[in-house]
Amino acid sequence: MNSKNKILVIGGTACGPKAAARARRCDPEAQITIIEQSPYISSATCGLPYYIDGIIPNQDSLTVRGPRYFKQVLNIDVLVSTRALSIDRSSRKVQILDMATNSTSALEYDKLVLATGTSPVVPDIPGVKLAGIHTLSNITDAVAVKKYLTPEIKQATIIGAGLIGMEMAESLASLGVGVTVVEMKDWLLPSLLDFEMAAYVEKQARQKGVKFLFGQRVTGFEGDSAGRVFRVMTAKGQVASDIVILAIGVRPNISLAMESKLEIGEKGGIKVNQFLQTSDPAIYAGGDCVENIHRVTGQPVLVPLGSTANKHGRIIGTNITGGKDPFPGVLGTSAVKIFDTNVACTGLNESGARENSYDILTCLVPGEEHARYYPGAKEILIKLIAEKNSGKVLGGQIVGPGEAVKRVDVLASSITFGATVDDLANLDLAYAPPYNNAMDPLHNAANVIRNKQAGLAEALTPMEVEAKIRNNKNFIFLDVRTEKEWNEQHIPAPQVLLMPLDNLRKALGKLPKNAEIVTLCRVSIRAYQAQRILKGAGFSKVKFVDGSLTAWPYELTG
Amino acid sequence: MNSKNKILVIGGTACGPKAAARARRCDPEAQITIIEQSPYISSATCGLPYYIDGIIPNQDSLTVRGPRYFKQVLNIDVLVSTRALSIDRSSRKVQILDMATNSTSALEYDKLVLATGTSPVVPDIPGVKLAGIHTLSNITDAVAVKKYLTPEIKQATIIGAGLIGMEMAESLASLGVGVTVVEMKDWLLPSLLDFEMAAYVEKQARQKGVKFLFGQRVTGFEGDSAGRVFRVMTAKGQVASDIVILAIGVRPNISLAMESKLEIGEKGGIKVNQFLQTSDPAIYAGGDCVENIHRVTGQPVLVPLGSTANKHGRIIGTNITGGKDPFPGVLGTSAVKIFDTNVACTGLNESGARENSYDILTCLVPGEEHARYYPGAKEILIKLIAEKNSGKVLGGQIVGPGEAVKRVDVLASSITFGATVDDLANLDLAYAPPYNNAMDPLHNAANVIRNKQAGLAEALTPMEVEAKIRNNKNFIFLDVRTEKEWNEQHIPAPQVLLMPLDNLRKALGKLPKNAEIVTLCRVSIRAYQAQRILKGAGFSKVKFVDGSLTAWPYELTG
Repeated sequence: MNSKNKILVIGGTACGPKAAARARRCDPEAQITIIEQSPYISSATCGLPYYIDGIIPNQDSLTVRGPRYFKQVLNIDVLVSTRALSIDRSSRKVQILDMATNSTSALEYDKLVLATGTSPVVPDIPGVKLAGIHTLSNITDAVAVKKYLTPEIKQATIIGAGLIGMEMAESLASLGVGVTVVEMKDWLLPSLLDFEMAAYVEKQARQKGVKFLFGQRVTGFEGDSAGRVFRVMTAKGQVASDIVILAIGVRPNISLAMESKLEIGEKGGIKVNQFLQTSDPAIYAGGDCVENIHRVTGQPVLVPLGSTANKHGRIIGTNITGGKDPFPGVLGTSAVKIFDTNVACTGLNESGARENSYDILTCLVPGEEHARYYPGAKEILIKLIAEKNSGKVLGGQIVGPGEAVKRVDVLASSITFGATVDDLANLDLAYAPPYNNAMDPLHNAANVIRNKQAGLAEALTPMEVEAKIRNNKNFIFLDVRTEKEWNEQHIPAPQVLLMPLDNLRKALGKLPKNAEIVTLCRVSIRAYQAQRILKGAGFSKVKFVDGSLTAWPYELTG
Repeated sequence: MNSKNKILVIGGTACGPKAAARARRCDPEAQITIIEQSPYISSATCGLPYYIDGIIPNQDSLTVRGPRYFKQVLNIDVLVSTRALSIDRSSRKVQILDMATNSTSALEYDKLVLATGTSPVVPDIPGVKLAGIHTLSNITDAVAVKKYLTPEIKQATIIGAGLIGMEMAESLASLGVGVTVVEMKDWLLPSLLDFEMAAYVEKQARQKGVKFLFGQRVTGFEGDSAGRVFRVMTAKGQVASDIVILAIGVRPNISLAMESKLEIGEKGGIKVNQFLQTSDPAIYAGGDCVENIHRVTGQPVLVPLGSTANKHGRIIGTNITGGKDPFPGVLGTSAVKIFDTNVACTGLNESGARENSYDILTCLVPGEEHARYYPGAKEILIKLIAEKNSGKVLGGQIVGPGEAVKRVDVLASSITFGATVDDLANLDLAYAPPYNNAMDPLHNAANVIRNKQAGLAEALTPMEVEAKIRNNKNFIFLDVRTEKEWNEQHIPAPQVLLMPLDNLRKALGKLPKNAEIVTLCRVSIRAYQAQRILKGAGFSKVKFVDGSLTAWPYELTG
């Protein structure tokens, strides 16, 4: 009898190898085996879009480690092209299939790790099996897409404007392929961003030539006589397409877990406790196939991300070798580069906060990534969501050409510890002109929420103002920028009146005291200042437009 | 009698104008006056080095707002070139001098704000008044330096390797002036960085041609017949110098406060309570002239920074108009760009932690700013300091060409809330290949400390290993990199033995079981792995070098 801990890991992308390597460092004696159905181990699947467009020139760069490294350095056996067929929990055996030889065998375990990942959702609609219709979840997929992208491929349709869809939009556009993104919901990155933040990103992507069809469901695909896709059909029309990327979402791979009667969570992922243990104490699960607890809501969520998978791996490696390391949950922090726009978010967005019945305050705060007088300062736009009374920060989204991800990481760190907007406003963040302003844009965003709590700042969202314009409401839409700025660009609405902030105090007599006034500028600092001047002068119905022109998601002149 | 709140602000750089503007937004009726002794209001003094080297081409960029803006938009009176002579606290009057007309008068106040800033320390040594010897604390200084920098100025000596000294080293070197930095302590940025972190930065600065003289006190200056400096004398020698920048530190401007018997703190700044109120409840003080509470130690500190001054300003503006907003203290978070090296730190450094009697663990963790397979990933080096038993993070320093400031901001946010290394290791930070690795380098640093807590990782600092080498100790210094890497660069010590990690398991028999072994690689990942392999194989005295070659502050071959 062998007293060594027998560890079997199913799945070799991120969580699995990490769990195995950590287990080895904790237990030099354990017998550790990883099985992986693809030919690759330790794949960098987040790099696939960048492999397709050539930013990552070499396919080898997509595999961090090979089986040889695992054997030589870690004394871990890796069986690639090997599939787990079933788990016998009573005898602690996994039936496996060697896909190269088509032979089956059984592997024993003391501890089993399920790191089975996700599979892309493929809709069951006519033509979905035509050549040229691809998903993108592993290296094999990426190689297939790259191979299909011959010079004849002129038009691509991407189904789904999520993370992979938007990365592929950039990837294919940068190869000179015309890109149309079809999204069932009404804006891009709908599970991450609120409408007005998505609109900011959309504007940048359209400038790069990407077309969007929102609110459209794909009904089928048409192919030529060679069985190659050439058209995507939607409920509202059709799009010529030489290639199609299906990126409508992923589902956790839970069939092995289900067949062996492990508990599945309400969101459809494998259910694990805080030690990432399934309902069978000898079986752990981590990575994309499990549900996580959201650190703000305390509710289970499915947020399959490589960042989480790696943390899971370390924790599982510790726990299957005698440790007791808890995983505290996720905030769904995400980042994606879409052309020159950095997009990042953490915690709840506005719709998520409302679904969870929070009474909230939000703000839209444009800012510059570093001191304006230091060259090259680029813009960011922050949306912050906080609980109204407590001021507890629930989430944030930041987009723009400037350094957005840094601020989202600060937000994620703060939300982790239950920060309020008061806390956020006083964070001692690093300042030097090349890196930041003396007040970080996050400080300003927190202060806008505090000003709203205090009743000093009263704002309307761009959407609320647009509804007033659309419904021909009678109000003064006071643009307090300079005449020069106004000539460059302004909102084409009959209610708009130009009155530069510098003249406002002198011109107060020209404005009717009881009129409803909405103030506007470029980034809402002057608009807020104007609101305070008007309020101070006895004007009772004054609000400013949150985010002003920078966040305005609708048409402008010029 | 006038019932309006009369607010008088002394000091017009950062805190003062911010306090005044905030007060106006909170109280439309108040009578608000700012007096400022220089001709400038709202100066961006952090931009001075960048104005001198021309990165900021226009002097006007250094003044964010002018008196006209304050009057027109904020209805605030600004008296520039005006000095406060004395405070009469009983009658609530400030005697002022109009330096243009040389006339004095008195201003009444209900609330007085002291935002008097700091003055550079000028040592009382021979020759210090020679032409060409400059301090750099305001726009007037910067204009003077820029004017003095004629083409004949070839050699500059900077006295003091603090933030301003190092920024000026870059500034002058980039203008083609030869730069020598003389520092009394033994390394650069001594109040911010520990030795080995400073050594990393020094290496980069030396590559740009900057010379350093550490541990040297300046004893005097010699000038030519025109009274222009040409030589700096130190206790150990002399340095030819056409221009000298005195950057040995700053002192809070507290004379007004002292003369009016306001309480001064133990560190020499004006003492304020959490509402930034001095010992006279009608007088508030903020910005560089006050002491702050350090959020880790709870002790008073002098950390004069623009980031803090601006936060102070807002809080004072709130509190002098009836609010009650507390300031929670500082972490001393700082950032500075030194050529292509980003330098940032927060909380306590190792010496600070030891002075405060913490029992600590530290780590040196190199990392890459984003996924290696995505082009352009640059290096950073992290030093993390945590309390040994609790794992509470006390501080961190990050340097390198890569994105250091982002991680320091995450650290600062985490330390604010009392984060432990366990918390840090599980922060849900944003990941996408252009922005980060699946595990942020901070996650790795936290995990190294956790591994040390758990006894899995045992390390020596570079300084400990260097002492062994210097003292000819008998140990095996096992370099586990590849032969190719070794040929490029290695540590020239007789104890060094090359044994690539890939071969280590096979070669174990060649190593004596009872020998003391210290493992080394490039970034300490392989060295740690080697340590685990050796420990697992029964070698008892094995440690790795923290930070390995990346953090090695001593000589290398090649």
